[in-house]
Amino acid sequence: MAPAKGIMERLNAGEVVIGDGGFVFALEKRGYVKAGPWTPEATVEHPEAVRQLHREFLRAGANVMQTFTFYASDDKLENRGHKQSYTGAQINEAACNLAREVANEGDALVAGGVSQTPSYLSCKSEADVKAIFKKQLDVFVKKNVDFLIAEYFEHVEEAVWAVEVLKQTGKPVAASLCIGPEGDMHGVSPGECAVRLVKAGAQIVGVNCHFDPLTCVKTVKMMKAAVEKAGLRAHYMVQPLAFHTPDCNCQGFIDLPEFPFGLEPRILTRWDMHEYAREAYKAGIRFIGGCCGFEPYHIRAVAEELAAERGITPPGSEKHGMWGAGLEMHTKPWVRARARRDYWEKLKPASGRPLCSSMSNPDSWGVTKGHAELMQQKEATTKQQLKELFERSKTH
Amino acid sequence: MAPAKGIMERLNAGEVVIGDGGFVFALEKRGYVKAGPWTPEATVEHPEAVRQLHREFLRAGANVMQTFTFYASDDKLENRGHKQSYTGAQINEAACNLAREVANEGDALVAGGVSQTPSYLSCKSEADVKAIFKKQLDVFVKKNVDFLIAEYFEHVEEAVWAVEVLKQTGKPVAASLCIGPEGDMHGVSPGECAVRLVKAGAQIVGVNCHFDPLTCVKTVKMMKAAVEKAGLRAHYMVQPLAFHTPDCNCQGFIDLPEFPFGLEPRILTRWDMHEYAREAYKAGIRFIGGCCGFEPYHIRAVAEELAAERGITPPGSEKHGMWGAGLEMHTKPWVRARARRDYWEKLKPASGRPLCSSMSNPDSWGVTKGHAELMQQKEATTKQQLKELFERSKTH
Amino acid sequence: MAPAKGIMERLNAGEVVIGDGGFVFALEKRGYVKAGPWTPEATVEHPEAVRQLHREFLRAGANVMQTFTFYASDDKLENRGHKQSYTGAQINEAACNLAREVANEGDALVAGGVSQTPSYLSCKSEADVKAIFKKQLDVFVKKNVDFLIAEYFEHVEEAVWAVEVLKQTGKPVAASLCIGPEGDMHGVSPGECAVRLVKAGAQIVGVNCHFDPLTCVKTVKMMKAAVEKAGLRAHYMVQPLAFHTPDCNCQGFIDLPEFPFGLEPRILTRWDMHEYAREAYKAGIRFIGGCCGFEPYHIRAVAEELAAERGITPPGSEKHGMWGAGLEMHTKPWVRARARRDYWEKLKPASGRPLCSSMSNPDSWGVTKGHAELMQQKEATTKQQLKELFERSKTH
Amino acid sequence: MAPAKGIMERLNAGEVVIGDGGFVFALEKRGYVKAGPWTPEATVEHPEAVRQLHREFLRAGANVMQTFTFYASDDKLENRGHKQSYTGAQINEAACNLAREVANEGDALVAGGVSQTPSYLSCKSEADVKAIFKKQLDVFVKKNVDFLIAEYFEHVEEAVWAVEVLKQTGKPVAASLCIGPEGDMHGVSPGECAVRLVKAGAQIVGVNCHFDPLTCVKTVKMMKAAVEKAGLRAHYMVQPLAFHTPDCNCQGFIDLPEFPFGLEPRILTRWDMHEYAREAYKAGIRFIGGCCGFEPYHIRAVAEELAAERGITPPGSEKHGMWGAGLEMHTKPWVRARARRDYWEKLKPASGRPLCSSMSNPDSWGVTKGHAELMQQKEATTKQQLKELFERSKTH
Repeated sequence: MAPAKGIMERLNAGEVVIGDGGFVFALEKRGYVKAGPWTPEATVEHPEAVRQLHREFLRAGANVMQTFTFYASDDKLENRGHKQSYTGAQINEAACNLAREVANEGDALVAGGVSQTPSYLSCKSEADVKAIFKKQLDVFVKKNVDFLIAEYFEHVEEAVWAVEVLKQTGKPVAASLCIGPEGDMHGVSPGECAVRLVKAGAQIVGVNCHFDPLTCVKTVKMMKAAVEKAGLRAHYMVQPLAFHTPDCNCQGFIDLPEFPFGLEPRILTRWDMHEYAREAYKAGIRFIGGCCGFEPYHIRAVAEELAAERGITPPGSEKHGMWGAGLEMHTKPWVRARARRDYWEKLKPASGRPLCSSMSNPDSWGVTKGHAELMQQKEATTKQQLKELFERSKTH
Repeated sequence: MAPAKGIMERLNAGEVVIGDGGFVFALEKRGYVKAGPWTPEATVEHPEAVRQLHREFLRAGANVMQTFTFYASDDKLENRGHKQSYTGAQINEAACNLAREVANEGDALVAGGVSQTPSYLSCKSEADVKAIFKKQLDVFVKKNVDFLIAEYFEHVEEAVWAVEVLKQTGKPVAASLCIGPEGDMHGVSPGECAVRLVKAGAQIVGVNCHFDPLTCVKTVKMMKAAVEKAGLRAHYMVQPLAFHTPDCNCQGFIDLPEFPFGLEPRILTRWDMHEYAREAYKAGIRFIGGCCGFEPYHIRAVAEELAAERGITPPGSEKHGMWGAGLEMHTKPWVRARARRDYWEKLKPASGRPLCSSMSNPDSWGVTKGHAELMQQKEATTKQQLKELFERSKTH
Repeated sequence: MAPAKGIMERLNAGEVVIGDGGFVFALEKRGYVKAGPWTPEATVEHPEAVRQLHREFLRAGANVMQTFTFYASDDKLENRGHKQSYTGAQINEAACNLAREVANEGDALVAGGVSQTPSYLSCKSEADVKAIFKKQLDVFVKKNVDFLIAEYFEHVEEAVWAVEVLKQTGKPVAASLCIGPEGDMHGVSPGECAVRLVKAGAQIVGVNCHFDPLTCVKTVKMMKAAVEKAGLRAHYMVQPLAFHTPDCNCQGFIDLPEFPFGLEPRILTRWDMHEYAREAYKAGIRFIGGCCGFEPYHIRAVAEELAAERGITPPGSEKHGMWGAGLEMHTKPWVRARARRDYWEKLKPASGRPLCSSMSNPDSWGVTKGHAELMQQKEATTKQQLKELFERSKTH
Repeated sequence: MAPAKGIMERLNAGEVVIGDGGFVFALEKRGYVKAGPWTPEATVEHPEAVRQLHREFLRAGANVMQTFTFYASDDKLENRGHKQSYTGAQINEAACNLAREVANEGDALVAGGVSQTPSYLSCKSEADVKAIFKKQLDVFVKKNVDFLIAEYFEHVEEAVWAVEVLKQTGKPVAASLCIGPEGDMHGVSPGECAVRLVKAGAQIVGVNCHFDPLTCVKTVKMMKAAVEKAGLRAHYMVQPLAFHTPDCNCQGFIDLPEFPFGLEPRILTRWDMHEYAREAYKAGIRFIGGCCGFEPYHIRAVAEELAAERGITPPGSEKHGMWGAGLEMHTKPWVRARARRDYWEKLKPASGRPLCSSMSNPDSWGVTKGHAELMQQKEATTKQQLKELFERSKTH
């Protein structure tokens, strides 16, 4: 059973499409994804956990179930000694099945996703890199996903290659870079990136991951302005972090010293998400979702903020109530006194960490594509390699 | 199938028992529990979500599956207009089934839990309050849970009543107050509280919820010192918040302006949990778990910190690696450089919120048991009642 | 010319006496005092600078000109290789002359001050320590100061010795410890300290330095309660730091890592001083001044807050205006909009330092009187001694 | 007696010239300047206070004594009901006498200064505005100052007018805007501003006030790059705030909610000044001084950082010792352990204010030259005018 309306029909009709949140961070916290490799073998090892997370995002209001195929290319799956019991094809197939199963439980589309490859960072040829995308794509075609997303690319060149491969299917293609206002890792501006992606055939362009919501919205605005200036047409998407990142440089949250195991104090509240959803909507972005750090309640907040525009409240709101209304039932009167929009909109939440600062100095090693240390390595990182890195990190 | 070894056998043998984390906050974020009433009807409405959370805690290393029966007394279930489709008995039974099902998948015990009642706050008689506990207990007996926990009591008097009821079953009884070093809401010191609970028959005493881990450990130490000074014997438990609360008064995190929808910046990291587990262990506490804010990875961190003492690593560690070792497989060299204990132990994580402070002024309304505003009310809070509360909150 | 009314007449009449602020920190910033030794040779080397600071405090509303004789005992003046061109007697005499000269320009009293000695820390005998106080006292008698203050004592025992010496002159004696609520360095409580000082003959007791204003007021309240409980009578004084010190242990700001060259972010605003003055007044303290960190405008704020109670506005207020009223004349309208009490009372001033935290971990070496490292040493600290300290500080 | 070497001789020889710090903020804290009007009548009312501050800056290493003639134009002196007992000419003359008296005590030059006028903001004609500068200039010529500074201009147009007037004397002219990287209040970039000023005849250009040191250095670098690109030649000066202002918009610290009575937590430490001096020097700036917030010890830190380059240590260093060396003489061993550069360079000083944030939202009223609310007004601001402003400030 395919959903009634495709992604292009919805966007062309001016509808707001709510995306889901990031799976690797959410499932890492639940115990099914390993931070470091960040690969999605959970689709075969623990399908019940992946299915449950899909369900929660659906319940939160998501219209898109992205297949949990992040980093599911064979070159990445076995990077640096990360042994796998399953092939890339098995992992990708299982991901498609899970996404479709849950999508059918509601009004959601299945999007097959590919992302950046170690091969590109290792300076492999265009043909080699495209062959990797093609392999994942074969599964998506077989499983008949509803549309495709090329996401989490640091270099627009690789994203263009991905779009070119994905376009061959005839399915709608979205392309999403993990860049900020300073542009991609080669210094190509967001506007220029977007123009190239649209010219390559992407119908939807935008950014995901690496930066906080308002920074991402700002970046997509730059994309939109450039696409329009070039006389092109596209739809726009945004799937940011659920972490505040005012102190990032161009590499995004990867460079923050807190990445990935100390990001808790940066997690956005649901009220931050209301602001994000409103700003994204006002910017003309109509595919609005999330990435790393998003939990189901964050997506629900996006859906609640846009409930009037969409004419629908997500199923999960039965256990919420707008703007904290559920607190009217709290036992304590001073908590009932917080059952109002005004209270939560103005709240500036304290960190509870008086020994910690509000910003960090990001690492800035200046290491980019082509540098030896970014090369693909099948063997585990050696003790000697680690020792050298530890020393180096102390002098930065 | 009952587990091989009971709670008392384990504790008497000096073993560390790892508890699970709090269900209401975790399931609120997943979309199955409503903040405000905080009741557990999800056990019948969405058993798959409750089951999955049990599984994640089991996988994280928990030896105890607490039935998700928090606030599942009939007087609480229907408080302030919160309509229910299921009876308290149905909700409690379903909770027992789910806990047992998952406990049987590993080495875990099922603990049936009761908690404080609106009836007590409304000054009902001892007999009335005890009758409420008895009703939940009947289900626990029928379902043959392994032991019982009276938890989340703000007044030691009510906790003693609960212990007296639970003792009638002959099952081991644990008692856990939600108090800090200043004692219960009537000013009874932690030490005195513990002595009364032990005298009432509790074999395990401690605290849960309301304060951060190190504050809770400190409070249990006060309990232990007093119990020993009184020449009594007991085991000790601690199930704290996963939120930093340096700015709380005696009422705990309920009084913080961030409760319950702005607590994100206060969430503990996994490294904070290592410190917590070590301090709890050093204090002689052997039942070590979590409450609100704990996600599965927090419990896993507790289990990893105590892996040597327990001679076991939790299943979920297959997707982790001690002290960030998984980062050895990260693509970026500066992230691989973080694959070491020294790095994470020293990190002081920034909040990413330069417009926010590190502490808040807690509400302190001075409203306690017997005050009209704490009285049970079956009808929904009226608009007029809310208006008065809103006004009042502005002058505090 | 002596002032019309003595200190005891004023206090007995219930008047508020405004003290001055600390000289060592203020003159260190102006370039006349060396941080480390903190000795007052500026009275002879640069009398114009000392005179000017006296004048500024007088203009700010101070009723007391303390002779700038802090640490002006011979054993301290030559500590650790600090060569002096002048004798202690010369420095003390010059200090008396300057204080009297400026006191005569307004309604102010001259107070001769002695403070703790290296000799006491070096375990010299009571007779030896008293001889040191006596030597300074001889100058005060010759110069006929109006009353005497024994201030900045970490150990009540030494303060009692000082009071016993000062009492011999027949002049009123005030005694002020640099302790907080935890008591003196031997663990004697504030209350017990105060009782001992009153019994030794001090007519005025209190605390100065080491802690922020509200902590000092709290400590003096403990003193007052104990003195009254003992059926004794006294007046009370407080001369706190102008630095916020929420993170101090019993040793006070000396232990903070920011002492003494990084304390800027902790400096109190004038509005903090209003609150301090009000709280001190409400606590029944009537000799209200300042210590390290106080600049003339801080004392003026104290005088302005208590203008109604005292029936007088300080001369310096001609260049101020209550609660920011001078801003009514500002060019920019949004600054004129700040010309109101409400604005400044509610302001929570940002640090402008997003990479810094709000609290520090104090050093806590546990080194006290009698320990070798606190012993008097005439020779300069050697390179080897420093090296050992540097190493040690890294492991703390 | 004129000093041996003029400003141009020094700068042309590549020497570093150390400026003094700001007088209005320093003397406000000492009780001689009124915040709001910020006018310098203290030169006649309390010459001893002004003289003493000059001396302290001289002792700290300053080579320039700026006449305390800030806002000493007749139109500003009587703004908004600020009655004066002295004429502008009297105030300016007294300022010149004081500066010369102290300059002669050391190796310092006297600089006569003019600053922006209310007349310009009130849209008076070029001739009217120039007439105001001319009136102050007549005094400077009569008193034979060594060179002239046109400083604290928000609009380059007015600064150019000032330079054109000052050039008529034949004395060297420096021009300093109070702008940041975003340029002047009409949006003219720093580079363009600098080019215009050099073309108008300024031999030295740069910025002062409104932003913190590193922001000011950054702005002057932009100026230098543009001047060089235009094939022009100039020397460069910088006299920044001693407040951290990471959160400012183009209007600078005036817009911060803490201005002017809550800036304490933002005050730079002496170690921040070392960094500032080094960065300014590395940027090729050779006239390095300070503005609001600078105390004598800040200027001394600048002089100490550049002691090797200048071949001279300031007189005030006799009471300091490089990098905290004076602490070698401290009684407490853990404070002696801080007598080292490494310690202070790495210190991140805590604010001691856990209820405060690290940044603020600046006011941004968007009111600029020509707007009614910026117009000159001789009469005091009325109660009704204030009421309107208070209301308005609440909605911003």
